[in-house]
Amino acid sequence: MGPRQPVPGVRLSELAARTGAELVAAEANAGGIVIDRVATLDDADCGAIAFLSNPKYRSRLASTRASAVIVSAADAAATALPKLVTPAPYATYARIAAMFNPTPSPVPGVHATAVIARSARVASSALIGPQATIGERVTIGERTQVHAGCVVGDDCEIGDDCVLHPRVVVYPRSVVGARAIMHSGVVIGADGFGMAEHEGHWLKVPQLGRVVIGDDVEIGANTTVDRGALGDTVIEDDVKLDNLIQIGHNCRIGAHTAIAGCVGIAGSTRIGRNCKIGGAAMINGHIEIADGTVISAASGIAESITEPGVYTGAFPSLPHRDWKHMVSVMRQLRALVQRVRALERSRGGEG
Amino acid sequence: MGPRQPVPGVRLSELAARTGAELVAAEANAGGIVIDRVATLDDADCGAIAFLSNPKYRSRLASTRASAVIVSAADAAATALPKLVTPAPYATYARIAAMFNPTPSPVPGVHATAVIARSARVASSALIGPQATIGERVTIGERTQVHAGCVVGDDCEIGDDCVLHPRVVVYPRSVVGARAIMHSGVVIGADGFGMAEHEGHWLKVPQLGRVVIGDDVEIGANTTVDRGALGDTVIEDDVKLDNLIQIGHNCRIGAHTAIAGCVGIAGSTRIGRNCKIGGAAMINGHIEIADGTVISAASGIAESITEPGVYTGAFPSLPHRDWKHMVSVMRQLRALVQRVRALERSRGGEG
Amino acid sequence: MGPRQPVPGVRLSELAARTGAELVAAEANAGGIVIDRVATLDDADCGAIAFLSNPKYRSRLASTRASAVIVSAADAAATALPKLVTPAPYATYARIAAMFNPTPSPVPGVHATAVIARSARVASSALIGPQATIGERVTIGERTQVHAGCVVGDDCEIGDDCVLHPRVVVYPRSVVGARAIMHSGVVIGADGFGMAEHEGHWLKVPQLGRVVIGDDVEIGANTTVDRGALGDTVIEDDVKLDNLIQIGHNCRIGAHTAIAGCVGIAGSTRIGRNCKIGGAAMINGHIEIADGTVISAASGIAESITEPGVYTGAFPSLPHRDWKHMVSVMRQLRALVQRVRALERSRGGEG
Repeated sequence: MGPRQPVPGVRLSELAARTGAELVAAEANAGGIVIDRVATLDDADCGAIAFLSNPKYRSRLASTRASAVIVSAADAAATALPKLVTPAPYATYARIAAMFNPTPSPVPGVHATAVIARSARVASSALIGPQATIGERVTIGERTQVHAGCVVGDDCEIGDDCVLHPRVVVYPRSVVGARAIMHSGVVIGADGFGMAEHEGHWLKVPQLGRVVIGDDVEIGANTTVDRGALGDTVIEDDVKLDNLIQIGHNCRIGAHTAIAGCVGIAGSTRIGRNCKIGGAAMINGHIEIADGTVISAASGIAESITEPGVYTGAFPSLPHRDWKHMVSVMRQLRALVQRVRALERSRGGEG
Repeated sequence: MGPRQPVPGVRLSELAARTGAELVAAEANAGGIVIDRVATLDDADCGAIAFLSNPKYRSRLASTRASAVIVSAADAAATALPKLVTPAPYATYARIAAMFNPTPSPVPGVHATAVIARSARVASSALIGPQATIGERVTIGERTQVHAGCVVGDDCEIGDDCVLHPRVVVYPRSVVGARAIMHSGVVIGADGFGMAEHEGHWLKVPQLGRVVIGDDVEIGANTTVDRGALGDTVIEDDVKLDNLIQIGHNCRIGAHTAIAGCVGIAGSTRIGRNCKIGGAAMINGHIEIADGTVISAASGIAESITEPGVYTGAFPSLPHRDWKHMVSVMRQLRALVQRVRALERSRGGEG
Repeated sequence: MGPRQPVPGVRLSELAARTGAELVAAEANAGGIVIDRVATLDDADCGAIAFLSNPKYRSRLASTRASAVIVSAADAAATALPKLVTPAPYATYARIAAMFNPTPSPVPGVHATAVIARSARVASSALIGPQATIGERVTIGERTQVHAGCVVGDDCEIGDDCVLHPRVVVYPRSVVGARAIMHSGVVIGADGFGMAEHEGHWLKVPQLGRVVIGDDVEIGANTTVDRGALGDTVIEDDVKLDNLIQIGHNCRIGAHTAIAGCVGIAGSTRIGRNCKIGGAAMINGHIEIADGTVISAASGIAESITEPGVYTGAFPSLPHRDWKHMVSVMRQLRALVQRVRALERSRGGEG
């Protein structure tokens, strides 16, 4: 994330070959066009490749000044520009964007201001930033970056090639797999919310489990994942969590599931594999969500979902006056049902 | 939270005596069974005691390999295992779990990298971790732990036996009672959201009050409690706040109230004592919630609640198609009411 | 935010003159009353000026012991106290409160424990607190305060007179205008939530844009603003963000817009100028909200709003039993519509 380094241009034919996309162009020599960056359809100009994935933006194909575009077969006819045609324009774009914006390799080493416990084992290829604190018996894997102000508690294991952005906290005994990315403010392994009522006050229930995170997990800024009460909270491989998400104790999030920002998941819930959970959805504790379930943004899920599908529970807003009327009518619903029943009876009486 | 130390086993009869539970067992010598840890019904084996509190998991009683279980009288018949019978299995479990997992005493002292203002008074039994910053005129109580990267602003008072996990921020002039637990990322005393419109732009309203926190309060990761605008924001004794909660300026949260994750409470609202507020509930500003009120998860509370009881406002989600139909019908509700009225009139005309 | 310094008293006539309010009093010499602080109506006593802005608290005018009050013309008759009458009591209060509580000037300088990259340019009038980290090629403006534990990444530009409270993280290449206030735990410029599905797993989409923040922006504790995917996320001048808000990548928030706590805004959405968004509102991605729109607390906005106005979508909660009945009736709505249709047909048949 330093200043972007200029990277050498790549011919369009080469981009097609590397991504498996089909190069389609009116001009025979389009394969020789040199691309050296990605851009949006609106911002692109000579040398840039843009993409169309969201059909909402299709009209921008007509006006883009990109040298080439990445499109699906369905959109290919909508532009005369040289193009890479692929069933997955967004994924193809992602790969080309990564090609032109390689992540700079960190310079290994431990900053002089970092505090590393004597018993910690930090790979010599790892980077430990300023003011970071690494606890006793911690292991930090090869090429892993622990940036400024991070705190990794005693007995944690952090795998290879992870990036902990500044000010991540990992509580003791947490386990993190390879290639994790954790953004600033993430808190892994804080105590779950466990209290028992006892003679009018709350008794803290010791939170004895861990957080165990698989490989290829990304966790957004200020997201929190609580440690298990007994047993572990588990985030499986390739799970993607956005910002400001709360994962309660003893949850299990299945592999390849993606969860958008501001979602809350109460304790002991199991989310299946390959689920997609929209922003601000709120999911009850002690339930199970089937593999492949899609939950719409801002929906509340109170009970287990056993059949995959799309589930929704969020009302679209209305102009305030209309909304008030609707709410007021809703409150008369029971009466309305009774009135309809009365009408039916009265009709029955007439019949 | 270091590595768990092995603790000596305790006889079941002794556990019963210490917790006031009744020991019930088929075998006369069951009181002599030695227990040395707690576990879930599923994970327990020889030497472990498990508990049943949520009836959802009752079937697991049959298969557990625990040496003993903690159950209510209602569930006692469901297992032949030696058991501690008690009206409050979860609280009894909590106490036994704490017995087998004593919190290790911190090693007192100030880390060499901590920055302590000269006028601060830090108890000699307190622990100040690496990179922590303690402001002018702060007092830190006996045995209190201020872990790595915490920042305690000028003129704060932190009581005895508190634990501030890594990277907590306490703004100036905040007051925290005894035995507080604050998890990582907590922010106490940031400015409330106070602005006045003035000639087309916003004028900042100085936030002059404090945050005052009682004894035995636990605050979850990344939760924020704003300072008062004028007067104080008050969190009374034994309040328990989960993660990612926002408490607005000048709120007062009554003693023994527990609030689950992702809840927002707007400014100047008073929550009573012994309330329970479910996750992601959203509570308006300038209202009052009666003592003992229970608010269901994801419910919106717009107006004061004067009668304790359970209040709910969250729709359960439906398969997306069903939901769309329901929303579309709801939008026809006003028309429906008019149609029913027309039918009633027409019937009246016939009558 | 150190201890409040006593400030000299100011005559009421002088306060009127400085704020443009009208001094109204029964006593001819009321202009000579000396005021030296602000207070709430309830807490005020001799020497204090209080204000009434929220009509909910009008009854408190009768009992206040303030030396003077700030009121609107509509409320002026409700008190016999000396008063400043103004169309904008809250703004007038804000200015007087600021007068009596001037922000102490920071003592410039770089704390010995801060880590400043050699190529960073920090104004000599700026304050850099303990354990702060300033990256390569960063510029920090005049009189700007970067408090304890903040991390400012490479190539950031932070304007003049900003205050970054403890533990703010600003990712590389972010741009922040003058007079920004960022509260603790704010994360600016973390990667947006961009992944493309590719052969059953997620491919990270490089997040190449920046966050660009205008002048006079305040951002609340633990709020996150993601960097753009391509192009920038933009927060325009005088935007006010409360705590625990999530702003997705490539959003643009128009000037003078205020957003209350716990709001989530998904990616690529444009919020107009002078909007007011209530707490916990959830706003979809890729939509546009017209200038001057007001969104009620806890409302979900799924589609673009082209006409300014007040929009609402949050149900008020009910006692649990009533709510359950209402939800159950709602589920019968489609059937009800059909029953009404049947009644209409049957009436038609009679006609």
